Amino acid sequence: MTNKGLLVVLSGPSGTGKGTVLKAYFAKHPEARLSVSATTRAPRPGEQDGREYFFVSKEEFQQMQQEHALLESAEYCGNCYGTPLAPIEAWLQKGYDVFLEIEVQGGAQVQKLLPDSVGIFILPPSAAELANRLRGRGTEAEAVVQKRLHAAKEEILQAKQYDYAVVNDTVEQAVEDIAAILYAEKHKTSRNPALIERVLNND
Amino acid sequence: MTNKGLLVVLSGPSGTGKGTVLKAYFAKHPEARLSVSATTRAPRPGEQDGREYFFVSKEEFQQMQQEHALLESAEYCGNCYGTPLAPIEAWLQKGYDVFLEIEVQGGAQVQKLLPDSVGIFILPPSAAELANRLRGRGTEAEAVVQKRLHAAKEEILQAKQYDYAVVNDTVEQAVEDIAAILYAEKHKTSRNPALIERVLNND
Repeated sequence: MTNKGLLVVLSGPSGTGKGTVLKAYFAKHPEARLSVSATTRAPRPGEQDGREYFFVSKEEFQQMQQEHALLESAEYCGNCYGTPLAPIEAWLQKGYDVFLEIEVQGGAQVQKLLPDSVGIFILPPSAAELANRLRGRGTEAEAVVQKRLHAAKEEILQAKQYDYAVVNDTVEQAVEDIAAILYAEKHKTSRNPALIERVLNND
Repeated sequence: MTNKGLLVVLSGPSGTGKGTVLKAYFAKHPEARLSVSATTRAPRPGEQDGREYFFVSKEEFQQMQQEHALLESAEYCGNCYGTPLAPIEAWLQKGYDVFLEIEVQGGAQVQKLLPDSVGIFILPPSAAELANRLRGRGTEAEAVVQKRLHAAKEEILQAKQYDYAVVNDTVEQAVEDIAAILYAEKHKTSRNPALIERVLNND
């Protein structure tokens, strides 16, 4: 099967625990990497350039945009954020599966730009459980929880734009589901033209 | 994830060992069923109606064709063979994964008719190994082996028409690969509209 890595576009509303799932996935799968975004915001204490973010100036960011070096970009609170393509492609060529954790709108953009990518949407087991998890943080008033729940449902409406859905019922199962999906994807004939050639050419 | 079974269209040239792989798969996966063809040829000793084939008269076969009750059909040596759709659909509804072992041309037809089906092409590890396996039967002259090898390569050229390729290097691995592919397919968002609805509707 193909040795090239897969670009995985992973989304899911706040409260689905996708951060926890990803952390568990990376702990178990050394062949996986998390894409690092570029940002114009200043590093916070403890953040390292190239680990949490690539920290760049506004001018550098604009130049990346002009050179189409970013897969997607967005502005929040006056700071620019974007996904640099070059480090992703370098990892993919080396055989790493690269995960892009991204909100739904950016995810849809990337999937259109890169139809070879694998879109995975993380679902909560139920809306009730999602509300519990949002409440469970214990830091928000009920009105805020309801607002987040509404926003989460708006995102879940877009789940169909992703290739696969994984329910985060238990983290272990969600990790296994993602692994099975990537394993199967690497068996797609469209990803293995060289394999078919090889069998045909007596090698 | 979806409880509906998958229709698996499985092909691979003679000598790839797809029969052995299927046998091992069914032994391990009680949720899988092999589609049974209808034929107008007479039963041979030991063959049971509904097990090896559905044995039907020419008139019955023609009626099935007219009623579009066959997924595909072909004639060999004056006998008609076809794939009845009704038993497949009944199994799928019950949650069985139904395997259709079929030659490449029929497989392409079925995949066009039923885009929901999953196409799997079984590849030999190499052309050299395929030749060995064809020779290994020990029943054929080298000229016949070469002719079969040529026919097999013609079929392998069509592998791209299938969604997935599985290399039959070891039977155990091929069985696991097929299982992973079906498991991942059941996580496709397109197969799980009800799951997404359920999460949205507070259930």
